[in-house]
Amino acid sequence: MTDGFAMKVAKAVAGTGPMCAGIDPSADLLGAWGLPDTPDGLRAFGLACVEAFAGVVPVVKPQVAFFERMGSGGMAALEEVLAAARSAGLLAIADAKRGDIGSTMAAYASAWLDPASPLVADALTVMPYMGLGALQPALDLAAAGGRGVIVVTRSSNPEGRSLQTAVTAAGPSVEDQLLAEVAALNSGGLPVPGTVGVVIGATLEPSAFDLSGLGGVVLAPGFGVQGGTTETVRTLFAGCAPGTVLPSASRSLLSTGPDVGTLRDSAALECEALRTALG
Amino acid sequence: MTDGFAMKVAKAVAGTGPMCAGIDPSADLLGAWGLPDTPDGLRAFGLACVEAFAGVVPVVKPQVAFFERMGSGGMAALEEVLAAARSAGLLAIADAKRGDIGSTMAAYASAWLDPASPLVADALTVMPYMGLGALQPALDLAAAGGRGVIVVTRSSNPEGRSLQTAVTAAGPSVEDQLLAEVAALNSGGLPVPGTVGVVIGATLEPSAFDLSGLGGVVLAPGFGVQGGTTETVRTLFAGCAPGTVLPSASRSLLSTGPDVGTLRDSAALECEALRTALG
Repeated sequence: MTDGFAMKVAKAVAGTGPMCAGIDPSADLLGAWGLPDTPDGLRAFGLACVEAFAGVVPVVKPQVAFFERMGSGGMAALEEVLAAARSAGLLAIADAKRGDIGSTMAAYASAWLDPASPLVADALTVMPYMGLGALQPALDLAAAGGRGVIVVTRSSNPEGRSLQTAVTAAGPSVEDQLLAEVAALNSGGLPVPGTVGVVIGATLEPSAFDLSGLGGVVLAPGFGVQGGTTETVRTLFAGCAPGTVLPSASRSLLSTGPDVGTLRDSAALECEALRTALG
Repeated sequence: MTDGFAMKVAKAVAGTGPMCAGIDPSADLLGAWGLPDTPDGLRAFGLACVEAFAGVVPVVKPQVAFFERMGSGGMAALEEVLAAARSAGLLAIADAKRGDIGSTMAAYASAWLDPASPLVADALTVMPYMGLGALQPALDLAAAGGRGVIVVTRSSNPEGRSLQTAVTAAGPSVEDQLLAEVAALNSGGLPVPGTVGVVIGATLEPSAFDLSGLGGVVLAPGFGVQGGTTETVRTLFAGCAPGTVLPSASRSLLSTGPDVGTLRDSAALECEALRTALG
């Protein structure tokens, strides 16, 4: 049987340390790197990131919005960046935060998790507003291919707290109920364990849900610019299984480019600090 | 001052009746229409829909997932379909259900609501899981251009009810709190009234929130295949302002293609039935 997504991540983390490096070609960063704000600029930025991060971090995370803002030309650049990441042995999470129901959700799953798609990635971030059950087509396709679906549960921004802490009729908060549902999927609800991961901001108070039973990857944005530190990460994710936590650095890291060597050194340093913090 | 999105929709509905026609080129429908499951097939399907719907419905809604599943080639087809809808005088809602925070949300806004983008539409559907406040970059850009942002609040699928009815610390349910926040934005929170709309499934019990004060468009999927009828729509949305409710028909309508004349007649008939039901 193929490894589940969590196992693939754990193996990669064992090699390099735990970190997800964002690939966020915003207009600001393209300008700072001396690149044009065009599809060619997106492509050059993304390929430089892949070159810098290969071998020093386990996972990269292209932020789809920054490619999509240039329409089909931007998406073509993203296809090349994803292919380059695959060739370089990097795991790639498409940070697209997709979500829908039925055949529409199946179409998103096909776009990002079908190996025949030009946009295929190792995992896709998704939005659970329409219920975790609505995401089933993505969960099934991911499990079948040893890929992952990463559910936004506790986001790093303050505007999300009211909704995410609302109390469901079953008792737990929205976010705790989702975490419990994810844990159930990883421990038998899907044919491949470790298929489902979660997003938990590195800027929050510790989760009420015991993360030691999650069975999947924790993607932790908010590290760096938004205020999360290696110490926050150590405290928040103390109970998580080894190799499952991926603090995600984007702007703070990318602002050390465009020199590929410097960017690689920054990533290596940060990844090593996180390895020490997470043990 | 430019008309807000709700005013644009109301004017268009006054001409043709209230209905949103989906453009959903699923593999199944492409096959039924005798079209290849390729970017060319997507393009032909979308352009035929625009030809059929122009002048008989006020609004079309391309379902982005069905284009995205073919990567950049699919997105290029969508660009052409959106441009054709504009030329034909149809309002277009990009049903993309995007959502994120900060500069990432601004990038999605730029993709779908900036007139310079090849993907620009008249409105964009969005996911509120990270809080309505996180969507501010889209709200601001939409208001500035007389475009709309349509927030998924009460989705038509059963898997979403637990989350959407969870109770916030402030008292109301998640969905009612969102509806109240949308109403506040439309009545002064944004410079242009009617910028923010909502998705409310045509399959649900009536909303606890009084929709007469919403001040924005209600997009109502679930009509047709999912079980919503003209009678459901009449009951659910009795209190809404005239011209603001857009029941959305996709598979049921599109399965009457591929003949453009037949598809146009089906759309006209359904739109007239909805005009009678909604008064």
